[in-house]
Amino acid sequence: MNERWLREINWSQDGLVPAIAQEVGTGRVLMVAWMNRDSLRATAETGEAVYWSRSRKRLWRKGEESGNVQKVRSIRLDCDEDVILLEVEQIGGIACHTGRANCFFRRLEGDQWVVTDPVLKDPSQMYGTAAADTAAGKGAKSE
Amino acid sequence: MNERWLREINWSQDGLVPAIAQEVGTGRVLMVAWMNRDSLRATAETGEAVYWSRSRKRLWRKGEESGNVQKVRSIRLDCDEDVILLEVEQIGGIACHTGRANCFFRRLEGDQWVVTDPVLKDPSQMYGTAAADTAAGKGAKSE
Repeated sequence: MNERWLREINWSQDGLVPAIAQEVGTGRVLMVAWMNRDSLRATAETGEAVYWSRSRKRLWRKGEESGNVQKVRSIRLDCDEDVILLEVEQIGGIACHTGRANCFFRRLEGDQWVVTDPVLKDPSQMYGTAAADTAAGKGAKSE
Repeated sequence: MNERWLREINWSQDGLVPAIAQEVGTGRVLMVAWMNRDSLRATAETGEAVYWSRSRKRLWRKGEESGNVQKVRSIRLDCDEDVILLEVEQIGGIACHTGRANCFFRRLEGDQWVVTDPVLKDPSQMYGTAAADTAAGKGAKSE
């Protein structure tokens, strides 16, 4: 595969861009994670979303532990080439490590963030107990 | 307004988070820009999207030049508190500085980015000639 399309991305100084996963059909924004060149290439080649885990500093195939992989229907690029938009089919119906359908489960009401979406599956059933403990920690969105 | 909700955001080292604008009704992802604390506060207080322009280092009320403001219907926060999702009504039907409805107008087909969405309005009519020249430049998404 000619890699010119990868060079057209306006990567940040640390070689990353944010990638939005949007659910096909519902249009729901499921999550945002990061991609580097290798993860975007792998996403295009395999047809499944592969991100870059900043906390673990390695490629992270979404669903590699939970089974909730994302089948990629399209890959889009924005006007200044620094954000990726994926249209995905979310296997298992759960994108968030908290066991919810998507990561944007809090809405601002007045001056408070209010949880609006239910937990569909206990994280300990998705990852095992140790991983769930990690997943419950702040900033540990990745699996 | 109690500002605890602003302190719950996991701001980056430079005090920013990405903010996605999604169109109410269609679910279309229009654009991604950046917010700092002041811009998010202003967005909540005014009900119109206010971003932080990294290139111009100042608050940027979306539509301040073009008139294409974004009326904000909801503000959401993701699981690790570092991405904002706005549900907006896009006045004028144009979110992108290129004169397109949204910024994600290129799709990867094989190994090429292919433009899939038409220009609805000449940028020179949105911003005046000088601004349009700037807007046509790489990385100058903000108005």
